[in-house]
Amino acid sequence: MFVARVAQDFRDANSRQRKKLVGMGIRIREVDGSFSLKSILERAKQDLGETIPLVTPILEAIRDNGDEALRELTRKFDKIDIDSFYHPVSEWRASIPSDLQAALEKAKQNIETFHRAQLPIALDTTVSGNTLGIRYTPIESVSVYAPGGKALYPSTILMGVLPAKIAGVPHIQIVTPPQEGGIPDGLYAAAKIAGADAIITAGGAQGIAAVSYGTKSIPRSEFVVGPGNKFVTAAKIILSGQGRIGIDSPAGPSEVLIIADDAANPNWVAADLLSQAEHGEDSAAILCTDSMEFAKKVSAEIDKALLERPKRREMKTASIQNESWILVFPNLKSCVDFSNEYAPEHLEIQTRNYRELFEGVRHAGSVFLGPYSPVAMGDYISGTNHILPTAGGSRIFSSLGVMTFLKRITYQEISRSSLKELYPYVKVLSEFEGLDEEHGNSVKIRLSE
Amino acid sequence: MFVARVAQDFRDANSRQRKKLVGMGIRIREVDGSFSLKSILERAKQDLGETIPLVTPILEAIRDNGDEALRELTRKFDKIDIDSFYHPVSEWRASIPSDLQAALEKAKQNIETFHRAQLPIALDTTVSGNTLGIRYTPIESVSVYAPGGKALYPSTILMGVLPAKIAGVPHIQIVTPPQEGGIPDGLYAAAKIAGADAIITAGGAQGIAAVSYGTKSIPRSEFVVGPGNKFVTAAKIILSGQGRIGIDSPAGPSEVLIIADDAANPNWVAADLLSQAEHGEDSAAILCTDSMEFAKKVSAEIDKALLERPKRREMKTASIQNESWILVFPNLKSCVDFSNEYAPEHLEIQTRNYRELFEGVRHAGSVFLGPYSPVAMGDYISGTNHILPTAGGSRIFSSLGVMTFLKRITYQEISRSSLKELYPYVKVLSEFEGLDEEHGNSVKIRLSE
Repeated sequence: MFVARVAQDFRDANSRQRKKLVGMGIRIREVDGSFSLKSILERAKQDLGETIPLVTPILEAIRDNGDEALRELTRKFDKIDIDSFYHPVSEWRASIPSDLQAALEKAKQNIETFHRAQLPIALDTTVSGNTLGIRYTPIESVSVYAPGGKALYPSTILMGVLPAKIAGVPHIQIVTPPQEGGIPDGLYAAAKIAGADAIITAGGAQGIAAVSYGTKSIPRSEFVVGPGNKFVTAAKIILSGQGRIGIDSPAGPSEVLIIADDAANPNWVAADLLSQAEHGEDSAAILCTDSMEFAKKVSAEIDKALLERPKRREMKTASIQNESWILVFPNLKSCVDFSNEYAPEHLEIQTRNYRELFEGVRHAGSVFLGPYSPVAMGDYISGTNHILPTAGGSRIFSSLGVMTFLKRITYQEISRSSLKELYPYVKVLSEFEGLDEEHGNSVKIRLSE
Repeated sequence: MFVARVAQDFRDANSRQRKKLVGMGIRIREVDGSFSLKSILERAKQDLGETIPLVTPILEAIRDNGDEALRELTRKFDKIDIDSFYHPVSEWRASIPSDLQAALEKAKQNIETFHRAQLPIALDTTVSGNTLGIRYTPIESVSVYAPGGKALYPSTILMGVLPAKIAGVPHIQIVTPPQEGGIPDGLYAAAKIAGADAIITAGGAQGIAAVSYGTKSIPRSEFVVGPGNKFVTAAKIILSGQGRIGIDSPAGPSEVLIIADDAANPNWVAADLLSQAEHGEDSAAILCTDSMEFAKKVSAEIDKALLERPKRREMKTASIQNESWILVFPNLKSCVDFSNEYAPEHLEIQTRNYRELFEGVRHAGSVFLGPYSPVAMGDYISGTNHILPTAGGSRIFSSLGVMTFLKRITYQEISRSSLKELYPYVKVLSEFEGLDEEHGNSVKIRLSE
């Protein structure tokens, strides 16, 4: 009732009154010399300094006492008594609604098509008369972490498992916090459709430790991917630092940066910003535009939407008010420059010349071009991956893909004639580096016999 | 004189007497049920637990006090007073001997040819009626760490800098401990030939921190590669864990695994094993063979070589005696299986059927095929990279290459008709995940207007 009444008041009010009425506004700033973008750029760097000392004893307990420690920690943190942590997907006998089944199958089909196209071609070439090449081989065992509770997304299972499957990883398991009532059918279905071997019901740092060390009941994985909370992230970082596992790039709060001009639909742009805010109160939604008039229109659409679409409103409002911005730049080129600095997880370009602007993009996770490409399409169905570097990580890291699970083996076959031709160079270099007696010799003796 | 006398005795003695005489033998073991390979497989896992607390205050000092702290730490650790840390390569006016110049140029040429062939081709494809693709863009700034003193290898400068250059990294600098007498001309020459911008004379953890945080005189790098001691490795791991920099895979002691049958030349195989031992007393050289007779011949050649080639003998002997093995397996297939478990940095295959055996190789850094491919060729001149994952890291990591410095940006342009066709799936999935109000809506409103 309250919502209906406020909505009626809202429709009657003007823009300034509207903000006052509900206090939901996104900040609009004109970017000139006087406004510093530094705090916007340096968002969400996770400081794990306080988390690491908490996580270390958990990792050690699992390393030393395996299943027994895991059972105890699960009782402590998840408040659940667990008999068995290991659940082969092949033993699942239930089913899910046919429309959900069809949607997951369609998502799988598109993800597979796009990820199969990423499979690299082996290199075999000739350099200085010798055969040199690269072969690609998969990692042997991968765990995909899937957060539990409300954040348990079947779509993320597909995104994590399918690229590993296509890369040829032989052993793939999902690790996820245990839930009252057992493993949800939606999770089992996604695991089965994606082709995972098993679901491990163990959460948090103890779950990451269990798959990294292996226990009596849980097979070890050499590589661990997927988003999680700060305990999960800290565990992944510590174990990878020890050389125990490989990991994907660390994941923080989700974010979108939209570059739009006044040809874009303010209602659609507002919906895309709110779509990001729907992920959590720490999500950031940034609009960069060259038009103050357009900025105000989008702001008004956001206010309206927050009133008319009440679900998760507190979360969305917190994200919009505290983490989000509309930045008005002198021109679109400056928007792209800022975006490259920011290196967003998701980048939408909704301008007249979106293809031209895209040419200038140097850093972003996944890019959405033109008016009909909202981020939600990539989240669910287009075929691109939605596990992406956040917090500026796309300046140095890639999104999850088939290459995440493949590595390059280089090889060479040297001919005797090339050995002879190249030996003088090896001699000079190995002498200069003080390694002539053995390095240099290992080439020389092959020519003297 | 002593060496000459022992060498004479040695030539007169039989194999058992020889070992007794100098005590230099490599261990030979027949691999059957009773011999455990576990300790050989679990080599050289660096435990940085004690190093990290030592390194953390160094990183904080550089972060908080920049050049001033760096000057103080350099005085403390390197015993050198430094005025200026930043040395543009363009200011170097000296030259190096023409044969060394020619050798570095030849190495550059082969490395460039092989690494240019690694440049990926952008992907642009159609999935469900939409354009999906991948663009590759370089990291903006890279530092290549080069250890100092005797381990200062111009060849490693080429291996670290050239792939970044080919990837298109705009800012590349070398960071290396300061030396009495200034920067050696060999280092300057390699930096100039490879195309680095500058040499930063700062070593250890403080050097890594200086390029990772940047100081008043030193530009910041977003990615740091190259081998170093445990302080360097600890600094790289801590800073990458904080999301401050990206790093290559951690580097430990160098190692080779050779698979050879009795068609191989025992003298050449011994030379290759000793070539590895020449790197340091912690280097590991493993020979896997199916012939005990061949094993004994190689062992004898090693004994002989250690006597006849005295340089770095203590180091080589320590590596051979303490870290190295000859393992005699029932067949060559078992050698390959063991090699895949071991995942060597360098793998040589010197057998009659080396190409066939190579088909079964799943994990290795760089592979050397046939009788004329000693590791030294890859170290210096063949064109493959010599910065490789050690200690089993090749089970999950690649060697340094052009892809180390590129990242994938995925993109999509969705058409209105495809949006319409795919919306029902987005609706079902977003409803199931509780994200229909905004995620679902952002697609729906584009169809209703």
